[in-house]
Amino acid sequence: MRMPEVVVRRLPVYLRVLQDLLADGVDIVSSGELSQRTGFSSEQIRKDFAYFRAFGTRGVGYRTRALNQRLRRALGLDRGVRAVLVGVGNLGTALVRHFLGRRSQVFLVAAFDSDPSRQGLAIDGLRVLPMEQLGPVVAREGVKVGVLTVPAGAAQKVGEALVAAGIEAILNFSPVKLRLDPRCHVQNIDLTIELESLSYYASGARGPGRRRAPEGRGG
Amino acid sequence: MRMPEVVVRRLPVYLRVLQDLLADGVDIVSSGELSQRTGFSSEQIRKDFAYFRAFGTRGVGYRTRALNQRLRRALGLDRGVRAVLVGVGNLGTALVRHFLGRRSQVFLVAAFDSDPSRQGLAIDGLRVLPMEQLGPVVAREGVKVGVLTVPAGAAQKVGEALVAAGIEAILNFSPVKLRLDPRCHVQNIDLTIELESLSYYASGARGPGRRRAPEGRGG
Repeated sequence: MRMPEVVVRRLPVYLRVLQDLLADGVDIVSSGELSQRTGFSSEQIRKDFAYFRAFGTRGVGYRTRALNQRLRRALGLDRGVRAVLVGVGNLGTALVRHFLGRRSQVFLVAAFDSDPSRQGLAIDGLRVLPMEQLGPVVAREGVKVGVLTVPAGAAQKVGEALVAAGIEAILNFSPVKLRLDPRCHVQNIDLTIELESLSYYASGARGPGRRRAPEGRGG
Repeated sequence: MRMPEVVVRRLPVYLRVLQDLLADGVDIVSSGELSQRTGFSSEQIRKDFAYFRAFGTRGVGYRTRALNQRLRRALGLDRGVRAVLVGVGNLGTALVRHFLGRRSQVFLVAAFDSDPSRQGLAIDGLRVLPMEQLGPVVAREGVKVGVLTVPAGAAQKVGEALVAAGIEAILNFSPVKLRLDPRCHVQNIDLTIELESLSYYASGARGPGRRRAPEGRGG
């Protein structure tokens, strides 16, 4: 059954929580606990999980490992997915190293950059190719996912090139809203927003370097 | 009024959507449209917004700019927040450049690294200091937020050092679940999970490089 986009948007949140639970050695998790950790209602969670046919046991909960596997299969992660990255500046280079260093079912097959001085380099063994080779590589290697780490001014043009090459999903780190063929899914990661959202917890931000008393609960 | 953690967790999602709407020049947004874009129910959204006293007009919606301002004030972003980053490897260096290059109410005041060969360097003008100076700098500069970009093996120890120094919120890029004083809020960003969640949209992942017909709607 095809999942509505609102459900798909919640999947990374579930994946993250399941990762934490598995790391903690938690075998069974209730929908109440999942609700606590995700912010979604128990009812919503049960409905979402029904899309990939994961059903908990009443009064007990879900088996963490099985739930994780079902979710990953629903995402297509059991098959393996090929990706390219465009823009090997600081963030792009860091992400190449980061992704290559992880065990993951997403395989980075090449990186691209329009700057000739970066072409021909290898980042941890991954080739940096000129943009002209994007289309041929994507077609030949069956690449479906693109990671976009170019400067804001170049993002729209590169996004269009990715779509033209046949990319179906883009992870966009550029602080730009891309306007692309709606058949291509774009997921934006704005690291500035992630950092800013933390400021809610910096409760004493007004005071200059004042520590809370150790016995205090804080604001 | 103090927001429950489940509400706070939804704030970055609202921030991101509001950023998109403002970029698109959208003046008014209905809770239905916000529901569509966030995946949260209209009712949930109205309840969340009541925490920071943002009320829409019935049958019309919310004024985008005012809503954004209220949300940022609720987060404490109007006051400005100081942050440090620990671990200036590839990702850390990229993030320093990324954050310094943006207009944001979160100010990066210093970076730290335990590697002596990195100490004394400046990344776009920001000093890289030895770990021993973490406590004094955090106290003197009134720093409340820490960005953690050290390798997995060092993450727990560095997390503890951040808490001991007085840090109240951590943005954790290390693929490790930190066990810290619960008064310190930890937000995990797992870039691998973000990338993996995209594979749902790579519908043709099984076929080797096959393009969808241009007139097709895809799977």
